[in-house]
Order: sequence, then structure tokens, then C-alpha cells
Amino acid sequence: MTKTLFVLNGPNLNMLGRREPGIYGSITLSDIEEMCRKKAASLGWSIEFRQSNHEGQIIDWIHEAGEKAAGILINPAAYTHTSVALQDAVRAVSLPVIEVHLSNIHAREAFRHTSFISPAALGVICGLGAQGYEFAIEALVHHLEQ
Amino acid sequence: MTKTLFVLNGPNLNMLGRREPGIYGSITLSDIEEMCRKKAASLGWSIEFRQSNHEGQIIDWIHEAGEKAAGILINPAAYTHTSVALQDAVRAVSLPVIEVHLSNIHAREAFRHTSFISPAALGVICGLGAQGYEFAIEALVHHLEQ
Amino acid sequence: MTKTLFVLNGPNLNMLGRREPGIYGSITLSDIEEMCRKKAASLGWSIEFRQSNHEGQIIDWIHEAGEKAAGILINPAAYTHTSVALQDAVRAVSLPVIEVHLSNIHAREAFRHTSFISPAALGVICGLGAQGYEFAIEALVHHLEQ
Amino acid sequence: MTKTLFVLNGPNLNMLGRREPGIYGSITLSDIEEMCRKKAASLGWSIEFRQSNHEGQIIDWIHEAGEKAAGILINPAAYTHTSVALQDAVRAVSLPVIEVHLSNIHAREAFRHTSFISPAALGVICGLGAQGYEFAIEALVHHLEQ
Amino acid sequence: MTKTLFVLNGPNLNMLGRREPGIYGSITLSDIEEMCRKKAASLGWSIEFRQSNHEGQIIDWIHEAGEKAAGILINPAAYTHTSVALQDAVRAVSLPVIEVHLSNIHAREAFRHTSFISPAALGVICGLGAQGYEFAIEALVHHLEQ
Amino acid sequence: MTKTLFVLNGPNLNMLGRREPGIYGSITLSDIEEMCRKKAASLGWSIEFRQSNHEGQIIDWIHEAGEKAAGILINPAAYTHTSVALQDAVRAVSLPVIEVHLSNIHAREAFRHTSFISPAALGVICGLGAQGYEFAIEALVHHLEQ
Amino acid sequence: MTKTLFVLNGPNLNMLGRREPGIYGSITLSDIEEMCRKKAASLGWSIEFRQSNHEGQIIDWIHEAGEKAAGILINPAAYTHTSVALQDAVRAVSLPVIEVHLSNIHAREAFRHTSFISPAALGVICGLGAQGYEFAIEALVHHLEQ
Amino acid sequence: MTKTLFVLNGPNLNMLGRREPGIYGSITLSDIEEMCRKKAASLGWSIEFRQSNHEGQIIDWIHEAGEKAAGILINPAAYTHTSVALQDAVRAVSLPVIEVHLSNIHAREAFRHTSFISPAALGVICGLGAQGYEFAIEALVHHLEQ
Amino acid sequence: MTKTLFVLNGPNLNMLGRREPGIYGSITLSDIEEMCRKKAASLGWSIEFRQSNHEGQIIDWIHEAGEKAAGILINPAAYTHTSVALQDAVRAVSLPVIEVHLSNIHAREAFRHTSFISPAALGVICGLGAQGYEFAIEALVHHLEQ
Amino acid sequence: MTKTLFVLNGPNLNMLGRREPGIYGSITLSDIEEMCRKKAASLGWSIEFRQSNHEGQIIDWIHEAGEKAAGILINPAAYTHTSVALQDAVRAVSLPVIEVHLSNIHAREAFRHTSFISPAALGVICGLGAQGYEFAIEALVHHLEQ
Amino acid sequence: MTKTLFVLNGPNLNMLGRREPGIYGSITLSDIEEMCRKKAASLGWSIEFRQSNHEGQIIDWIHEAGEKAAGILINPAAYTHTSVALQDAVRAVSLPVIEVHLSNIHAREAFRHTSFISPAALGVICGLGAQGYEFAIEALVHHLEQ
Amino acid sequence: MTKTLFVLNGPNLNMLGRREPGIYGSITLSDIEEMCRKKAASLGWSIEFRQSNHEGQIIDWIHEAGEKAAGILINPAAYTHTSVALQDAVRAVSLPVIEVHLSNIHAREAFRHTSFISPAALGVICGLGAQGYEFAIEALVHHLEQ
Repeated sequence: MTKTLFVLNGPNLNMLGRREPGIYGSITLSDIEEMCRKKAASLGWSIEFRQSNHEGQIIDWIHEAGEKAAGILINPAAYTHTSVALQDAVRAVSLPVIEVHLSNIHAREAFRHTSFISPAALGVICGLGAQGYEFAIEALVHHLEQ
Repeated sequence: MTKTLFVLNGPNLNMLGRREPGIYGSITLSDIEEMCRKKAASLGWSIEFRQSNHEGQIIDWIHEAGEKAAGILINPAAYTHTSVALQDAVRAVSLPVIEVHLSNIHAREAFRHTSFISPAALGVICGLGAQGYEFAIEALVHHLEQ
Repeated sequence: MTKTLFVLNGPNLNMLGRREPGIYGSITLSDIEEMCRKKAASLGWSIEFRQSNHEGQIIDWIHEAGEKAAGILINPAAYTHTSVALQDAVRAVSLPVIEVHLSNIHAREAFRHTSFISPAALGVICGLGAQGYEFAIEALVHHLEQ
Repeated sequence: MTKTLFVLNGPNLNMLGRREPGIYGSITLSDIEEMCRKKAASLGWSIEFRQSNHEGQIIDWIHEAGEKAAGILINPAAYTHTSVALQDAVRAVSLPVIEVHLSNIHAREAFRHTSFISPAALGVICGLGAQGYEFAIEALVHHLEQ
Repeated sequence: MTKTLFVLNGPNLNMLGRREPGIYGSITLSDIEEMCRKKAASLGWSIEFRQSNHEGQIIDWIHEAGEKAAGILINPAAYTHTSVALQDAVRAVSLPVIEVHLSNIHAREAFRHTSFISPAALGVICGLGAQGYEFAIEALVHHLEQ
Repeated sequence: MTKTLFVLNGPNLNMLGRREPGIYGSITLSDIEEMCRKKAASLGWSIEFRQSNHEGQIIDWIHEAGEKAAGILINPAAYTHTSVALQDAVRAVSLPVIEVHLSNIHAREAFRHTSFISPAALGVICGLGAQGYEFAIEALVHHLEQ
Repeated sequence: MTKTLFVLNGPNLNMLGRREPGIYGSITLSDIEEMCRKKAASLGWSIEFRQSNHEGQIIDWIHEAGEKAAGILINPAAYTHTSVALQDAVRAVSLPVIEVHLSNIHAREAFRHTSFISPAALGVICGLGAQGYEFAIEALVHHLEQ
Repeated sequence: MTKTLFVLNGPNLNMLGRREPGIYGSITLSDIEEMCRKKAASLGWSIEFRQSNHEGQIIDWIHEAGEKAAGILINPAAYTHTSVALQDAVRAVSLPVIEVHLSNIHAREAFRHTSFISPAALGVICGLGAQGYEFAIEALVHHLEQ
Repeated sequence: MTKTLFVLNGPNLNMLGRREPGIYGSITLSDIEEMCRKKAASLGWSIEFRQSNHEGQIIDWIHEAGEKAAGILINPAAYTHTSVALQDAVRAVSLPVIEVHLSNIHAREAFRHTSFISPAALGVICGLGAQGYEFAIEALVHHLEQ
Repeated sequence: MTKTLFVLNGPNLNMLGRREPGIYGSITLSDIEEMCRKKAASLGWSIEFRQSNHEGQIIDWIHEAGEKAAGILINPAAYTHTSVALQDAVRAVSLPVIEVHLSNIHAREAFRHTSFISPAALGVICGLGAQGYEFAIEALVHHLEQ
Repeated sequence: MTKTLFVLNGPNLNMLGRREPGIYGSITLSDIEEMCRKKAASLGWSIEFRQSNHEGQIIDWIHEAGEKAAGILINPAAYTHTSVALQDAVRAVSLPVIEVHLSNIHAREAFRHTSFISPAALGVICGLGAQGYEFAIEALVHHLEQ
Repeated sequence: MTKTLFVLNGPNLNMLGRREPGIYGSITLSDIEEMCRKKAASLGWSIEFRQSNHEGQIIDWIHEAGEKAAGILINPAAYTHTSVALQDAVRAVSLPVIEVHLSNIHAREAFRHTSFISPAALGVICGLGAQGYEFAIEALVHHLEQ
């Protein structure tokens, strides 16, 4: 088993740090990538960290992960609430997937309370900021090494 | 009139054969392409067979079909249930369109029971596996040659 | 295995050719029966072709098919949208069932978009007119002879 | 043009006079038939008056009316709220149809407030008891003789 | 008992004959007033015929009818679907009320299928044009003289 | 008072023992008839046991029961969820009615959770298999002999 | 196997006989306890009969039943319609459970038509008064002794 | 402040002039670009005019606008009704945004009546054809120069 | 053709400048009237500017416009969301109508997101403050002079 | 601060004492006016007591109260449930408003359970008859004199 | 008749003064108890004032009130919106009940707009703070002494 | 600041290890307590670990935590989906709260997809089993020590 995890980030997350800091804080996506890399390394794993605003690109990457990775951490951002295609992509590969949201989506608008990804995920973490990414990596490794 | 049909396949169909075989069987998309090509040839027609995980790419192809083809067979996969843009694309070209699904979408989750494409299609075939593609080609040719 | 298929037609289909030709065309149910008979014969099968306006009668026939046929093609017409009893009848016999509609029910009134039969069917064909019957016969034979 | 109207009565109307007199009064269906006959005769028309508890039977009669009558008065009773097949039957014949209810269905349970027949009818009369039948006959004759 | 009926007409009915003739025909409100007057006279009754675009005015008139009339014929037009206040007004007086609509409101937009007035009315007539007014007058007199 | 109960069985119950044994078990309708007959006899009563796939037929029988029986046990099967006409039939006769279902309809699909019969019934028993019929007979006799 | 059944009664049932006699009759909970005790004894079983207005208390008792009883008869009263926790408690123990209601909850307010307990129960009896308890005991013993 | 506005056009707008002229007229997107350019120039501003069928591409451009433009005119076409990601993109940049639709979306199908973009926009103009673009440019300049 | 436009303002707009300045700003209705008058004059047209809190009054004015004006600009304020009668009034006259809202109603409470007027309007402008009135006048004149 | 309160009464309240005494009792609006006047006087305040069946009239009075009164007691009667315009009127003035209903609207039809006024009110009192008016006056004075 | 009222307070009201002062103010429950006691004494009555976070405890107290009190003032707090059991408890005793809320629940989240208690209450007061308790005591005494 | 966290467990969690192991696994609540204690100790904190089946008890403990703890980890189990009172309790204390679920509630029945607690929580973790508790403790300490 490859000891690599894919960490996939959805639309607008490239704007992190500049976008609505009242909701998302001042941390940038590079900062999160760095945190994830360190956390994975500390567990003897590596990560492939990517971001796209294109739904189709993220689906392509999930398929690629099916070839090259042992698990997926995904923050689908806005596609969480609208993309049946991402759910199908997750189901199409046989990897464990953990869904992460920086903010607490349940404390925001009603249309952010439902996720097409969650029913196909192993677990979900939201509202814990960048630390949620670290927990998800730890949980994936824990799940895969059992 | 050009005797060409576009056969367009939506997200995750490139995974066919590997993806959820309990639902989709072991046939691959290449197998289906081969079947479609033979069926079309037997009727004196040719096909242009494509797959993409990108909604925008499929819209581009529908527009292209408006220039180069006489009809469209589309399996919009997950975009069936979420894409108003695909419905608009179908309406924007003046070609007959038949919608095909490998599995019986009405026997699956409730969110798969509605289609944004169907209201703009000539007809719909689902649950008949790859044979549904053959029927759709036959029906399009029948419709166009009348 | 008997090489007979039941072809069952629901309410108002006896009016075909006279009823709302803008939606249903000028073909009559006798024409369709003739087409089905030929298609089945060409595959070495025979059909039992019936029509009734009585929900209970159609249920009786489905039960009868359970004794005498290898598969069922059903066009439940208006009972599609209201009859739990037809779904139960289909489930009560162990035969493959294909649901056919002459018109594209998804392009009509909202109450015609849902079917109680589909979840219990092998597949569904709609909007392809009488040709849909031919495809369904072919698909049933294909399914049964595999 | 034949000067005959079909007057069709749906399920449980044979119980009139005995059934829930608080809602339907003590008049019987024979009384109503007599009133209708007199009203039609006074206008130079005749009626064919029937009742059935069988949805399929009523559909058969609507088709028969398509051959033998110039218009239809229908009190679909409980089938009003559940029968798409009756709507289709009404649309399948080219006759004017008036829907009559003895009681005011809008002052009863919510499920009695919707009618599948009304969208296909010329008009609707409810809450006026047996007099509603007389008005409907008068309106049909008026409409047909214009 | 006064032998007078109030005939109350709601918003936009003053435009009758000019307004959407495809739906409402070319008859004017004056024509209808004339027809009502004749019908009432033939039965030994008189009418008070009024129209207003003001919801409050119609409520005032219903109250006035409570003093001066034996029954009310009301065509609440668009207020049918939005006015709880008219329902309360009808309930506040102890007169029989018949609701009339010129067009078949059940064959139009969904928001025209519900009526706040119907639950408080004796009966409802729709889709029979101006003749519906004549029937309503006849039914009110019949009800009151019993 | 006649000491007879009508035991009426709805659509597809004739298939019992063959139909979906995972849900309904291997007992046949004849077995249930025998059990009911014995239970009634032990209480000094007799039963009239019938089954039909025709909604209209069951309505006819409920009316007949109104003449010949003291109470009704009904298992309306699929018509439970769709038949306003059966509710009206039950209300049209003045007999106590107990509704029985072999399986626990509340543990099945959502559309089986609602019953048009229950609001007009004395009581409801579900999920207790054939024993539910015995209890219903006992309860009807108990209710009638009080 | 212990030959004991738990009979658990939910909120306000201690008021039986005093509470809304129009709905619940004049029988008291002690009367029902006595009836249950006799019925169980006649079958060679004993019962533990309890009532609480506290949702948590009833959950505790279901857990206790998991240790000490072979089956549970529960009348969850108002908690029927609001308590996911009771459903979980029933699922958490491996005992057969029958749900009983004195009145016919389907003939009352809409919010009483749904039950969180039913999907996890073996069967449901409602509307048969105290006799429903006797039937449930008989059914549990029958189920357990099979 | 840069005196540039981004004018972004969503899926299928490249088909303008060919697509459903009954709804959209015969004007092409190039014509609209020309009109926008002139209007902006007349106010001393310039525009960057783009169209894409790819949701992700439009998001990228909104982010780019955040760097290079002072405001955004967006016609999100079909993505209006399905894209949470576009709403997030608009919120992620700190520019005023005006949403424009050529046709009156409120006079079309129900699913076109809701917009995910509107809650994040400064204002919305629909149904005024290409002139709506001119107004939006004028309004953005007016808003930015205040 | 008369070169006059009616500018009709609905309930509470007389309070403009005093009412909820956080939403509506400090501009008064007189200011808006002045702006409209100037804009119309610059195009060679005149306006009739009115405000009422009475739904019936606004309907009367729409009818009056049918006689005296070539088009209507309407800000129906709160009646936007509740008045079927205003929709009917707009349909009853054969004039082009543009609906204007000062604030962006789609960024406010859910009940302000739907409009009964929009389906009958030529176009809708919202969120652009008083400038929206100017645009609407320009668009009406543009539409009428084409 | 003026020591005057406006007491505004909505549609049909002029019928009090004659209208549905089972719900509203035999007290008249004059009686209530007298009670309010005494209660206010006992606290050193005066009232302006009015009733109208016209929604627009009540809006005008709320605006007038904004000039002449320190607070408003409103019983919006049927307009409670349908008038967004009254909510806006209440928000448009800066006065405390208490909403009063004579009957307990929550114990009546479902459409009377929602109020457009309540979200903009200081408080709501219902079901306490005329005494509710006295309490509201006391509460307004208490609130204003704090 | 005992001259005692029960004043029952639901979950989290013990936190009053500390809990969300923006909504509930700085008054404590002891302050309210003191106010109630004085108000009751001034009318010659006494109160029993209690608070619990336990739904079952409040039900027990309502039953106890049935024995010892003449009426109940209840602030059910969060149980207002979820407890059918409290409605049943109120119905189970024959006392008049007034429901009080400190804040205006209709101006808060949608799930706080419905009450299971209100349909069984005499009246409801909300949004008037602690003064609402005083009014309720006065209203109960007024009601009981009539 | 006290370095103590409350870890509160809702209904049926005492059954862990015995209850539905297919969903919850074989770990017991004692095992989880042990894991939490170790994790907290490793960070220099202590925990107070409790479980109750009583909603009121959990509310009491949340209040107690407000006095004695710096943060709360809560697994509300079934009360997640039904308890407004728990949301209010969480809001009533000024502590950070993290909600944990052992299973992925979004992959279960629809009624488990909504949480009354989440909108008031800092974050939510589900589907990660007992490890979710460890993450929550870590996140609370991280949040509190920042």
C-alpha cells in the first residue's frame, strides 16, 4: 500500500486568507498545506495537496487518487452542497474519504447544511479550522494502518 | 445531412467496469464505444464517442454537435440531476437528443429520480445497460431517416 | 422456460390513434400489437398482447403472467403514477419487467414524472413511440436468454 | 349531433340516502336520475344515467360516451382525488365535460380539495346538492347548442 | 325576509370584455348584471349588483348585505386566493353565499386552485361563464325558499 | 343482529406464500381463511372470506356487508395507501371496521406509512402476521357483543 | 429464557380514567395492569408493569428489560411522535417489541400519525382500547414460544 | 482604482442569436460586447468581456477580477440557479457585482426563479435584453464613482 | 400613442427617507419623482407619478393607465409578494410594465424573494436604488419607440 | 413625548358581538373601546381608537401614529396572516407595537398560526379576550415610561 | 375552589439573568417569582412557583396542579416547540392554562414559531418580559372568578 | 481558568458495545472514558465523564459545566435531532462546545441528518468512532489555550 494521501480542496479555497476573514480566518491555503505535510510526515506518510475551482478537475483527481493514494481528505467547499458527481467519484474509487470544512457549515445558511459527499464518506469534521485537516490525516492513517 | 451521431458520456463513466460493479456491471466504456460503433455502422452511420468529467466540456461538445452531427445520445450521469446548463445546451442546438442511463435510476436514491435533461430530450432509456446505447442509436437513426 | 412474453397495456390505450394525437400520434394499439408480434417472432418468441382500463384486471394478468410467461412488457399508462398495487403485483411475480411509455412523460405535467412501477422494473423506455415496445421486447429476450 | 348526455356517477354514490346523511342528505341516486331525466327532456335532450364503483368501468363508459353522446356530466366521487386515468379518459374523447359534486368538497378534508378531473373539464359545480346536476345538464346543452 | 340578493364582484372584473378575452370572453360586466337582474326578476327577487377593486370595500358590502340581503353571490376574482379577511366577512354574516368564477380556475396556474372563500361558502360554480351567475342566483333562491 | 363478519382481502393477497416470502412468510391466504373460520366459530360467529384485486369489487363487498354482516375485517393491501374510495365505502356503511396488515407497514417504504382507511376504522393491527386476523375477529366480536 | 414481559407506559397514562374520557374511556391504568397480569398468567408468563412521565426513565427500563425480560409491550403515548431516543433504546436491546395505543391515533391530529417507535417494533396495535394490551401479550408470547 | 469592469457571461451564451430566438432574440454576444464597450467608453471606463461554459473558469475569472477590476457585471445563465460556488466566489472578492439576465427569468420555469448569485449581488436586472447590460455598466460606474 | 408613463408606488413608500434608512437610504419619494420627471423629459416623455397604501387604489390606477398611458413603471413594495390582484390588473391592460425595487429583495427575508408581478412584467430591476427608476423609464421608452 | 396610544382594529372587528359569538363572545367593539379608554385614563394616557376593513387605511393610520402617538396596539384580525405591507408599516415607524388577538389563534385553523406582524412587534397577546387590550395598554405605557 | 395557581417554568429558565442577556435581559427567576407572588397576593391568591429542566418533572407537576390548584401559568421554554407530552398533560387536567414567553418567540428562529402547548391553552402572552407573568396571573384569576 | 472539560454522553450510549455493533462497533463507553482521560492528561487537563438517558439531566450538567469547566464535549445521541432545550442550554453557558458522533449520521436515516446542537457548537466531528472524542478534546484544549 502506498503511504500517500490526496488532500483535495474545492472552489474558492485558493482565496483563503483574503476571503471573508470573519468566517474563514487569516490562514492561507499554503499554511494549511504546510501543516498537513508536517502532520503526515510525523506519521510516516506523504501527501499530494491540490486545489481547483473546477468540479471536473476534482473528479479527475479523485480518480487519480484511486491509482496513486491510500485515502483522500476532501474539502469540497461549495461543491459539497450541489455535486452528485463528486459523490459518485468518491463511490467509484475504493478509498476511505474524510470530508473537512474549515467553518461550521451547520451554523450558516440552510443550503450549506446538506452534503452530497457525506453519505459516501467515512467521517466528517467541521468548524475546527485548519486543525480539522490534521485530525483527518491522523484519522485516515489510523484507519488505514489498523 | 451528416450521418454522424455524437455519443456523449458524463462524469465517472470513464471508471466503468471498476466503479461499483454491483450497480454498473463489468463492462467498460471502451466496450460500449465498440458496441455503438458497430450498431451505427450497421445502419450506415458513424459516431463520435466522448467522455468528460467536466460539465463545461460536455456543453462545448453539445454545441460542437450542433455543427457536425445529426443527433446526440447523451448519458449525463450525475449531471443529469443537477445541471440546468446541460438542459439549456440541448435546447440551444436543434438536434434530437436521447438520454440513456445504464442503471435504473428510478430504483436508486430519490435525488436520482429527477432529470434536468429529460424535459428537453426526445426520449429516455434506463436500466438496460449497454444495450440501451444500441437502442438509442437505432431510435435516433429511425427518427432522423423518417 | 416458456418463450412467451406478456405485453400489458393500461387505461385509455385502446383509444390510441383517436386520443390526443398531438401527444400520442396516429398509430393504433392494433398497429403496435402487430409490430410486437413480428419483433417477437423474429427472435423466436411469441407474445400475449392485452389492454384493460381496469387496474384489477391488469393485476390479475400480471399474476397470470407469473404462471405462463417469461417476462412482461408493461405500459401502465395513467396507473403508472397512482398504483401501488401494480408495483406489488410486479414484485409478487418473479419475472423481469420493462416499463414502456409512448410519450416522454418527463416532458409533461409534474404528476406524470413519478412512477410506482419503475422501482420494481428492470428498465424503463419512454418517448420513443411504438419503437419503444420493440426495444423492450428485444431487451427482455436478451435478458432472458443470457 | 346526438342529443344525448351521459351522466356518470362514481364510487359509493349508489349508497346515497343511506350514506352519511349529515353530509349528503336523504335524496337517493334514483331521485337524482329522475330529476336529470326531467331537466334534459324539458330541453329536448335525453340522458344515459349510470353508476359504478369500478374506476375501469367509468373509463369504459367515458369511451362509450365518445361514440354515443354529445357531452358528459360526471360526479367522480372519491376517484376525483386519485384518478389520473379518469383525466386521461376525459382528454381522450372530444366531448365537453362538467364535473359535479353534491357536497362542497372545499369545506371538507384537505385531500378532497384537489381534483384530477377539473383541469380537463369545462366547468365544476359543487355544494349545490342534486340541483348541481340540473345546472350541469343545462350548461352542457347551452354549450352544445351555441 | 327581504327578497334581495347581493351580487359582489372583485378586482379587475370591471375590465371584463377588454381583459384577456382568450380566458374571459367578450361579455362585459354590464351584460352579466343585466342577465342576473332578469334571472332574479323571473324568480320574484331583486339584486344589488356591485364591483370593486378594493378588498376592504367588498368586506364593507358583505357586512351591508348582512343587513339588507337574504343571500350573496360573490365572484372574489384574485382575492379568492389571498384573502382571509373575505372568509371572515362571509362567516361574520349569517347569509348563504355562493362563489362563482367565470373561468375554470382549476385549469389555470396552481396558485388559482385554492380559495379562502370556498370553505365558508354553500357551494362553488366555476368555468361556466356568465351562466354560472344565473345558476348561483337560482340556487340561492332555491335554498332560501325551501 | 346477524353473527357474521366479512373478512375482505385486497390486491395481491391471493399470491400469499409465493409473493416476497422475506416480507410475508410462507403462509397462504387459504391458511388464513381457515384460521379465521376457526376463531370465529370458537366465538359462535361465522365469516365470509373474500379476496379481490379490483378496488371496485371490494367497494361492492363493503356495501354488501352493510346488508349482511355485523362488522368488517379488512386488509386493503396496496389500496390502503391510495384509495379514498375505500374510506368512503367504510364510512357509507354503519359497521365497525378493523384494518389488518400482515407486515409492519411502518417499517417499510414511506408511501406505505399512510392509510386512507385508518381514519375511518375502529382500530388497526399490523406486523403480527396471520395472528392479527384472529385478534381482529376477537376484537370485532368483543366490540359488537358489548 | 425468562418468562417475563415488560409492559411500559408513557406520559400521562397515569391519568387514565380521569383524562379526556371522550377519547380514552373510563378504564384506569390499574385496571389495565390487572388485565395484563391475568392474560400473562393464563399463558404461564408474568409481567412487570410500569408507568413514567420521564422519557429517560422509560429508556432506562427498556435497557433493564434487556437484562430481565423476554419481550416488551410499550405504549409510548406522546413520546411516540417525538422520541428518537426511544427508537434507539428499542434497537439497542435484542427483544421483540409491540407498540400499543388505546385510541386510534390515525383518526386524531396529523402529528399523532407518525411514530418513531414503529419502524423498530415487531408490530403495532391501536384503537382497540385495553384489549390491545391483551392481544400484544398474546402475540409476544406466541412470537417468543415459536 | 482601475477603471475596468469585468463582464462575465455563463454557459450557452456563446450560442446567442442561434439559441431559442423566441426567448433570447437575434442579437449575438459580439453585439452585446460591442454595446458594452461603447457604453463603458462613454463613461471613461473599459471592459474585459468574456464567456465560458465552465463553472470553474468563471470562478477563476471572478478571482482575477478581484485583482484587476473595480466591479463585475455577471450573467451567470444556467449557473444562476445551481452554483453555490459562484456565490462564494462573488463573496470572496470585495467588488460590487450586478447580475443581468437577458430574459425575464421570473416568467419562465419555476427552477429559474431562484438565484444563488442574487443574495451576494448589489442588484439584479432581468428581462430588458442587451440594454440590461448597458444599465448595469452605468450602475456600476455610478456606484464606484460616488 | 400618448407619450406618458405611469409611475406607481406601493405601500409605505411615502415613508421613504424616514423608513429603515439602513435598507432604503435617505432619499425621499419626492426626490425620486423629480429624478423620474427629468429623465422622462430628457427623452421627450412625461410621467404621472403616484403613491398609495391601498391595493385597490393601485389597481384602479393601472386600469386608468390602460386609458391614458403607454407604459407603467411599478414599485409594488410589499404587495409584490401577496397580490394576485395586481398581477391580474397588469395582465388586464395591454401595456408594457417594468417592476422596480429600491433594495435587492433577493438579499432579504425569504418571503420577499417571490413576486406575483414579475411573471406579467416585461422586466425587473432591483437593488439599484432610485437609479433603477431612471433605467426603467429609459427601457420603457426604448421598448415603446422601437 | 405625547401620552397617546393608537388602538387599531382590523377587518370584520366592527361585527364583534354579532360575528361568530362561539369564538368571539358577545362583547362589542364599543365595549372594548370603553375599556381601553378607562384603562389608559387610569394610567394618565389617552387613546385614539379606530377600526377599518381596508388594509391601506390601517397602513395610513400606522403612519399617522408615527406622527401623533407614542405606541400602537394593533389587532390586525385577518390581515395578520396575509399582510406583508402591515409588517413594513410597523417597521417604517419607530414606535413600540403590541399585537392583540381576542381568540387564541393557535387553537384555530393552521393558516391562522402565522403572523406577518409578530416579527416586527414588541409582544403578542392572544386568547384573553378584551382583557388582552387592557394588558397591552398597560404594557405599552410600562415600556414607554421606563 | 382552592385559590392557588401553579407557575411552572421549563428548561434553562434557572439560568435567567446569566443566559443570553441580549434576548432575556438581566432579571432572574427569583425576581419573577417575587413579582408573581406579590401580584397574586394583591388579588387574594397564592402561587406555587417551580422550575425544572426535566420534561417528565413538569408533566408530574401539571398532574399535581390538577389536584391542588385552580389554574396554571406555564412558560414551557424550549419544550414549547417539541413536547406533545406537555400538550397531553395540559389536556389531561381540567384547569385553565396560560402560556407565557419572556421573549417574542415569533421574532426568533422559525422552529420557535410553533407551540405544542398553545392549542390546549386558554391564551398566550409573549415578548412582554416578566410583566407577561403578572398579566397571566391577573387573567387566570379574572377567568376563574367570573 | 479551570483545566477541566465535561464530556457528556446522551441516551443509549451506556449500551455501547452491546447496541447494534454493526453501526457502533464493540468498544464500550468505559473504553472511551479511559481514552478521553488519557488524552486529556497528556495535555495537562482533566475530564468529568458522564452519561444519562435523561434530557433534563444533561441540561443540568451543561449548567454545572458552566460553573466548573472550561469547555464541553457532547455526544447528544438521539437528542441531537429533537432537543431544542439542549441547544438553549449550550447557548446559556459561555463555554466552547464540540459535538461528537461515533457513526456518520449523514449516512443514516434522514431524520438523523439534522442537529439542533450544531448551530450552537464550535465544531462537529462524526464517523470517526472513539477517535472523534480524542480529536474533540485536543481541539477544545487548543481553542482554550490559544
